[in-house]
Amino acid sequence: MFIKNAWYVAAWADEVSATPVARRILNEPVVLFRDERGSAAALLDMCCHRGAPLSCGKVVASGIECGYHGMVYAGDGACVHIPGQVHIPAKARVKSYPLVEKDTLLWIWLGDPAAADPSTIVDYPFHNDTAHWPHKHTLYPIEGSASLMVDNLMDLTHLGYVHVSTIGGYPQSHVDAIMDTQPTETGLKFTRWMLDSLAPPTYKKAVPALADRIDRWQEFEFVAPAVVLQWVGAIDAGTGAYDKGKRDGGFSMRIFHGLTPETETTCHYFWSTLNGFAPNDPQSTQKIFDEVSAAFREDQYIVQQQQMRLKELGEDALINIVADGARVHMRRVLERMLARETQVLA
Amino acid sequence: MFIKNAWYVAAWADEVSATPVARRILNEPVVLFRDERGSAAALLDMCCHRGAPLSCGKVVASGIECGYHGMVYAGDGACVHIPGQVHIPAKARVKSYPLVEKDTLLWIWLGDPAAADPSTIVDYPFHNDTAHWPHKHTLYPIEGSASLMVDNLMDLTHLGYVHVSTIGGYPQSHVDAIMDTQPTETGLKFTRWMLDSLAPPTYKKAVPALADRIDRWQEFEFVAPAVVLQWVGAIDAGTGAYDKGKRDGGFSMRIFHGLTPETETTCHYFWSTLNGFAPNDPQSTQKIFDEVSAAFREDQYIVQQQQMRLKELGEDALINIVADGARVHMRRVLERMLARETQVLA
Amino acid sequence: MFIKNAWYVAAWADEVSATPVARRILNEPVVLFRDERGSAAALLDMCCHRGAPLSCGKVVASGIECGYHGMVYAGDGACVHIPGQVHIPAKARVKSYPLVEKDTLLWIWLGDPAAADPSTIVDYPFHNDTAHWPHKHTLYPIEGSASLMVDNLMDLTHLGYVHVSTIGGYPQSHVDAIMDTQPTETGLKFTRWMLDSLAPPTYKKAVPALADRIDRWQEFEFVAPAVVLQWVGAIDAGTGAYDKGKRDGGFSMRIFHGLTPETETTCHYFWSTLNGFAPNDPQSTQKIFDEVSAAFREDQYIVQQQQMRLKELGEDALINIVADGARVHMRRVLERMLARETQVLA
Repeated sequence: MFIKNAWYVAAWADEVSATPVARRILNEPVVLFRDERGSAAALLDMCCHRGAPLSCGKVVASGIECGYHGMVYAGDGACVHIPGQVHIPAKARVKSYPLVEKDTLLWIWLGDPAAADPSTIVDYPFHNDTAHWPHKHTLYPIEGSASLMVDNLMDLTHLGYVHVSTIGGYPQSHVDAIMDTQPTETGLKFTRWMLDSLAPPTYKKAVPALADRIDRWQEFEFVAPAVVLQWVGAIDAGTGAYDKGKRDGGFSMRIFHGLTPETETTCHYFWSTLNGFAPNDPQSTQKIFDEVSAAFREDQYIVQQQQMRLKELGEDALINIVADGARVHMRRVLERMLARETQVLA
Repeated sequence: MFIKNAWYVAAWADEVSATPVARRILNEPVVLFRDERGSAAALLDMCCHRGAPLSCGKVVASGIECGYHGMVYAGDGACVHIPGQVHIPAKARVKSYPLVEKDTLLWIWLGDPAAADPSTIVDYPFHNDTAHWPHKHTLYPIEGSASLMVDNLMDLTHLGYVHVSTIGGYPQSHVDAIMDTQPTETGLKFTRWMLDSLAPPTYKKAVPALADRIDRWQEFEFVAPAVVLQWVGAIDAGTGAYDKGKRDGGFSMRIFHGLTPETETTCHYFWSTLNGFAPNDPQSTQKIFDEVSAAFREDQYIVQQQQMRLKELGEDALINIVADGARVHMRRVLERMLARETQVLA
Repeated sequence: MFIKNAWYVAAWADEVSATPVARRILNEPVVLFRDERGSAAALLDMCCHRGAPLSCGKVVASGIECGYHGMVYAGDGACVHIPGQVHIPAKARVKSYPLVEKDTLLWIWLGDPAAADPSTIVDYPFHNDTAHWPHKHTLYPIEGSASLMVDNLMDLTHLGYVHVSTIGGYPQSHVDAIMDTQPTETGLKFTRWMLDSLAPPTYKKAVPALADRIDRWQEFEFVAPAVVLQWVGAIDAGTGAYDKGKRDGGFSMRIFHGLTPETETTCHYFWSTLNGFAPNDPQSTQKIFDEVSAAFREDQYIVQQQQMRLKELGEDALINIVADGARVHMRRVLERMLARETQVLA
């Protein structure tokens, strides 16, 4: 069961050019392409003539041409050309999906098109603000559900176990963090403070002037059903980050996480790192991206192993622990969304 | 659902020697072998003792010997030897299938053996006439149904899209071809004429004396359920090919297509090219085979992609277009055959 | 359907160290590990918190630590540590399985723990007696059921067909062997004598003093449900092996076979070869292991092919032959065990 009446990241905008992209989203095969005027569109990836995937075709002046017998479809799904035939019947069309380009991302809506309101797409202006937040982005294919990946981001105690060899640091400092969780209209926010803690080596390398002991924060906003916005940073311990809101001048990085279901047990993980501590230094931008890449491969591994077990044995026998607060809240938000949607549809 | 009361190509005759060949046909595992007198046989590929595939065994004087405990079966399926045992019980036998060697092919019948009449096997004397029609042959394993492969041959408008980089030529000339379709007792025939059209580069290379503008024909005969016979050629435009039946002296090639279901969604594609324009030139025979090989890989690709979508989403929502005439006729022939067979069996 | 109330080989003792081993047994995912005191344990390979496989974690002082969020479990399955939490709820535990280390093997019990009596584990002191029976051991993963592998060992007529190129020798001598089968309390024993037969090249190479004609024996004991103990040997023909029990001084080798179901159609094949003819010569010990390795790969191949067919077409249409005596007896023992267990459970 997917929440369908929602915007999901379909692709990074720069992934989609005149060459069609095939991508399964919420278990529907979708083709993404950009027409000759630069406008991106999303269609069911199946020609209505003989069923060939449109992604095997090519973009032509009037739309996307099927690579089998040459039918052409406009971005709205209507067939606009049938070789050897003047009349185009009304039923010659494929399903099209609302698609919006915003903040370097393509957002897709697979539910009721009448309900697709672009104003509800999460704002992420940092992706456009390359002067202050230069970023790098990518896509990881995950053999685990989007929910398990959001779970992963909602319980940071995993850092000390999964990321021992990368960004983890000291398990206990993550366990002892001051945790503040706030529900929002679209999900929840939580902030974790690790006051007067040892600066991890990666922070020191990024910002050599940083003190050995730091006040460190991790802010996460979950925007249901499939986005997590992260801001982490640190300044010298006791200089007012926690109590006076002074967070400038230290280490600072944002991470955008878009978790789009591919199937019930696999997902597309779109993520970017934004350099807020040395925006004029491309090497720094590259370096934090590389370090996060390695850490996210670790998440990918454990979540895929977890998914394998849950696929076989289910979640019913599992128990919650104290650290699961934010995760459980997040799951309830999703369950409510799904119940509401199912009720409306029934 | 397969049409079982029909002859299918099981193998090229030269594929089957003393070494057994395992091949799934109409979703039954079959072993093909040739005994010491040169006679080919087809058995269910499973020993009736402990179930090992007979194709793991070897041919001995009296038949095929199971590679596990040494039971031997004659070509009619009867067990003729059980190690350590004199009495051979009547139930010690495996299913055998009528198998006929004809025109360099082995034809198999998987339906009611009583109905297997070898006189109904399609004649293809050209395979034997190496003086006038030297040929080369092969087998492509296709991850798509036999029906989808026959579909492909019944609608040649795909040439301009699938075979752009090989034998396709100009899409419009294929769309504008004069099409004549005739039902036959065993399927249908259709002829396409492209009069006064540009000679494709491959034709000119094969027959340098050919004029730049040619009258070009494509004759296809579908012999239900699983054979297509093709004859294509061209002579100089306006010299009487179309209206006076003069077809000698230009380019001429035959192609044999045998599409044998392996499973519901995969098939064996047996095909050969026969050189009718330069029968004394082995290089020409090789060259047209190589060119067709490349083109058929293109068909394989698009049909496999199509099959993948149809397997998931079905054919119900698809529409027919004008170019589907021959294809739709062919499908009806198959549906009638299947209905007749099912009725007889019920 | 598995017989669950029985001891199965879970691993060679030396396979399991501080690094956890993931192994599916009777279709349950199990993790095997050895704690810091050297004691081996077997748990369900799934953390009860979020379902990650415990085999992705590591062994710590108090047990095995989950690699996701750090929960620690003792060898009895009880959770002994939850990061960031003092109280450990009673339901924080995973299933543990009785595990016994004996004769260089780890034996596991997946049925009712109350019925797990270590005294019923088969004795195999030879594994410990390295002075008289030095051995080498390994594990083959088989894509065929444990039953099919035991079948294989119960009908030695296969030697002349499967092992032609290795240990097979002359098919007829295996067929003509004097066969004596005796039921036992836990299965059956059979002995095969090949009197005055030609010494196989491998025997001659192992024991150069051996005569050209030998009296050769093969003793097999099947201990239900999943162990076969084999002793083979030969001395000079007519010197009293058969009638006077004189079996010293010739060729002698034992083989331990443990067939543990992984799934219904795959198994773990634990086996060892024990050198009884030249115990002080490590090269001989290695050599017979190498020769048997090659032969068992042949068994693996044919059984896997057989399994493939049986998976598709079932066993119902198969017939028994005279050589199946021991095999059929063995199957009846297993059926009775399964019936008894199912009755008790119902």
